[in-house]
Amino acid sequence: MGGPGLCCLASSGDRPVLYASGQSILIARLVVHRARDTTRLASIERSHISHFFCQVVEAALATQLKPHQEKSNFIIKTPKGTRDLSPEQMVVREKILDMVVSCFKRHGAKGLDTPAFELKEMLTEKYGEDSGLIYDLKDQGGELLSLRYDLTVPFARYLAMNKVKKMKRYHVGKVWRRESPTIAQGRYREFCQCDFDIAGQFDPMIPDAECLKIICEILSGLQLGDFLIKVNDRRILDGIFAVCGVPESKFHAICSSVDKLDKMSWKDVRHEMVAKKGLAAEVADRIWDYVQCHGGVSLVKQMFQDPRLSQNKQALEGLGDLKLLFEYLTLFGIAEKISFDLSLARGLDYYTGVIYEAVLLQTPAHAEEEPLNVGSVAAGGRYDGLVGMFDPKGHNVPCVGLSIGVERIFSIVEQRMKTFGEKIRTTETQVFVATPQKNFLQERLKLIAELWDAGIKAELMYKNNPKLLTQLHYCENTGIPLVVIIGEQELKEGVIKLRSVASREEVAITRENLVAEIQKRLSES
Amino acid sequence: MGGPGLCCLASSGDRPVLYASGQSILIARLVVHRARDTTRLASIERSHISHFFCQVVEAALATQLKPHQEKSNFIIKTPKGTRDLSPEQMVVREKILDMVVSCFKRHGAKGLDTPAFELKEMLTEKYGEDSGLIYDLKDQGGELLSLRYDLTVPFARYLAMNKVKKMKRYHVGKVWRRESPTIAQGRYREFCQCDFDIAGQFDPMIPDAECLKIICEILSGLQLGDFLIKVNDRRILDGIFAVCGVPESKFHAICSSVDKLDKMSWKDVRHEMVAKKGLAAEVADRIWDYVQCHGGVSLVKQMFQDPRLSQNKQALEGLGDLKLLFEYLTLFGIAEKISFDLSLARGLDYYTGVIYEAVLLQTPAHAEEEPLNVGSVAAGGRYDGLVGMFDPKGHNVPCVGLSIGVERIFSIVEQRMKTFGEKIRTTETQVFVATPQKNFLQERLKLIAELWDAGIKAELMYKNNPKLLTQLHYCENTGIPLVVIIGEQELKEGVIKLRSVASREEVAITRENLVAEIQKRLSES
Repeated sequence: MGGPGLCCLASSGDRPVLYASGQSILIARLVVHRARDTTRLASIERSHISHFFCQVVEAALATQLKPHQEKSNFIIKTPKGTRDLSPEQMVVREKILDMVVSCFKRHGAKGLDTPAFELKEMLTEKYGEDSGLIYDLKDQGGELLSLRYDLTVPFARYLAMNKVKKMKRYHVGKVWRRESPTIAQGRYREFCQCDFDIAGQFDPMIPDAECLKIICEILSGLQLGDFLIKVNDRRILDGIFAVCGVPESKFHAICSSVDKLDKMSWKDVRHEMVAKKGLAAEVADRIWDYVQCHGGVSLVKQMFQDPRLSQNKQALEGLGDLKLLFEYLTLFGIAEKISFDLSLARGLDYYTGVIYEAVLLQTPAHAEEEPLNVGSVAAGGRYDGLVGMFDPKGHNVPCVGLSIGVERIFSIVEQRMKTFGEKIRTTETQVFVATPQKNFLQERLKLIAELWDAGIKAELMYKNNPKLLTQLHYCENTGIPLVVIIGEQELKEGVIKLRSVASREEVAITRENLVAEIQKRLSES
Repeated sequence: MGGPGLCCLASSGDRPVLYASGQSILIARLVVHRARDTTRLASIERSHISHFFCQVVEAALATQLKPHQEKSNFIIKTPKGTRDLSPEQMVVREKILDMVVSCFKRHGAKGLDTPAFELKEMLTEKYGEDSGLIYDLKDQGGELLSLRYDLTVPFARYLAMNKVKKMKRYHVGKVWRRESPTIAQGRYREFCQCDFDIAGQFDPMIPDAECLKIICEILSGLQLGDFLIKVNDRRILDGIFAVCGVPESKFHAICSSVDKLDKMSWKDVRHEMVAKKGLAAEVADRIWDYVQCHGGVSLVKQMFQDPRLSQNKQALEGLGDLKLLFEYLTLFGIAEKISFDLSLARGLDYYTGVIYEAVLLQTPAHAEEEPLNVGSVAAGGRYDGLVGMFDPKGHNVPCVGLSIGVERIFSIVEQRMKTFGEKIRTTETQVFVATPQKNFLQERLKLIAELWDAGIKAELMYKNNPKLLTQLHYCENTGIPLVVIIGEQELKEGVIKLRSVASREEVAITRENLVAEIQKRLSES
């Protein structure tokens, strides 16, 4: 009992009361702070509370009371699985996101934004086995909150909350998942998602086909090399499970296992199904017969003829929709990019109909590049029941959507640029204001303000007396194309020297013509 | 003991084990979930654990086991102090952010992004009295994390972590503060910040003056009406506190009180200083004599002559820098926008030199608008010691920066648009693909794919047989300027009808000329 400097711990009502001395402020704060988590457990007898607090305080003392050592042990880092984005990365990212967003806008989508966190209960029972990966916020009094896990559930919550029955929206934002980060593959605990979704009751498969068209446009536009979109339907999967003899209560669990087939061998997946999830071995093997199949629209027709599957109502609905989907995809000119793949499962609980996932088929563009295993770069599907989970009366709004895996795309493009040693400009500065003389700061400041006020992107050195060579080198290193030079002679003659960094040519221009001349040069380049 | 359907509860090691039946899956999940919070308190005897679990389960049963009622009690909302941004709001926001970012780029800034959360210890002792407003994440094993409170501390952490000695960067991102939300004033617990900062050892006040220039450019550019930037210096404040007789240990606390003068009367602030912070009443009154002063560069000169302040080394340094700052601001042509205001304090602990805050002077633009109290719309200052707090060896990088209060600007602009009944287009769709006939879905899909592939923003109705009037009304309601119409006659003649929504004029165009004609029309409008 009793760490140093601690006199007494007691509980008054449901709040702990501390009497402490010595180095106690820090510790007391810590204790009170931690205690808040536990005072809800008011049913534990008072004596046990004080016993518990003493233990907390002892632990706190053990870890906290070394202020001098602390600084040298202090490791500066970002949290596990997260990273800063450097200016170079930001430039690449901005280009890719611009391209993705402009595709979403080309398809008539509106923008939407939702908070980074949601009420915890909004996220429960939406993600199946993945729910354990949700980041919760600490209970600091008030509502229990969790960081959003995707942009789909917040969208469904938005639709239900505002009773919106029809909407085509895009959303670019960060989401958070407590996954084991395998950073080499571009997987992070914080990452950006770009989602496009169509909500509303429409004639079948038209919005679904548009989603696949969008994925094709984006992946083609980004020139990531050849790709394929695997397509399946949750109802076909459920039909397969049913005709193979999986008990209905195990559909979700077995679907989860099938979803792992792109990362695990059939042997391991089968073992999970049989040993961990209690499936009969012969049932597992029957599933395997189906999930090996993949092909084009002919496979859809073949499955219609399957003696067992053709007896299952759900499967028939799914197959009928896929047939229609392929018809529309042919009209869009993208049918050859699509593969009906019975092993595609998508782990998330909320999908109800067609599901899809785009994968890159090979290393992008050039043979000399390192091959990169990047897995899927876009995915999505139909979720007709999710909005109803939020609506007080259970009213549903059918939805279909897609999510572009931009993080993986970022890492592919970055890798490609590294391979080719491409240099990225991280600023957009057009003009540098320089001087060859001492004591010309005032003139430089007056001049640069004129440029800024004319909308010209300009920089100068934050020095009273910089060297001309240093100033010119800075322009060469950072890719600034133009320099304006002001010195004694120029001031006397009422001119400014305009220098092209690339050609090193200089011309004298009158002050009043400077802005116009710069704008002319910039528009020509 | 024992709620319905519950047989046995026991503890195995540090994990609870449940044996349950009946409606137990939901409850069991809940119990295990809650239990995880408490199993770390492993020191409590086993018998008490089971006792406690039984109580949790009883509570859970009381609140959870009414599935039918539950749904109706379920409130769909965003967390307290947060909100979704509607498509209309997103359009306004995008315009304002574009304008702000283009100003940052005009001044040569690079982009940077940091994670939404930081290691908790990175944020401690940076925010003074405001530290209680930091959102912590729940301890789910691993590191202790907090949501970022601003973009300045993550920037300083980035500089220290990467040993960057010089950088001009901007950062647009969300930050989170557990404040009491007064939503009418545009204050939220989640909000967007736009920061620009210059890090590096430079000649005095040149980067500081550029920061003020940037604030002026942005506020002028957004046409928010007249504004004023209050300027002060932490060293001048410290000098005032010293010569008034404030003990050095109370500088931060008294500075915090002075910071409240824009929201509270002097009477209340004085009371806080004297009654809560233990300052002698005559000391408080001496402070009041100073902090009432505000004016231009002449006030700087006057303070140089102040018999007490002129004896204080810190204050003299601050005054010297302000004199230089005003000189540069005059060269930038913005000196008349700046007021030296001795009451400006800025609560954050990390400022070390010049500080500033921009306030709107009156309701924007038009007299018929409702007056809006929006307080400060931009702020910043110099923080030369923050990077050193992260560096293991305490190496410093001097920094100065600014933050644009875009949320308040958003609400002003939204309010203005509401007042004037301005309609905002939330999509950018240029062309709608319509048909007057039944069974033309296939032709419409082929046609719209051609438009998309040519980069034209196009929509159609997700119906097999939509009515022509419905299609044309949609265009009028959403502001789509052009309609292409395909029907039996057009198909027979190999043409498409192109209709202007505004003039209702229609012309027939051959299929191969359609894209070119649309692009011509769009470039003319």
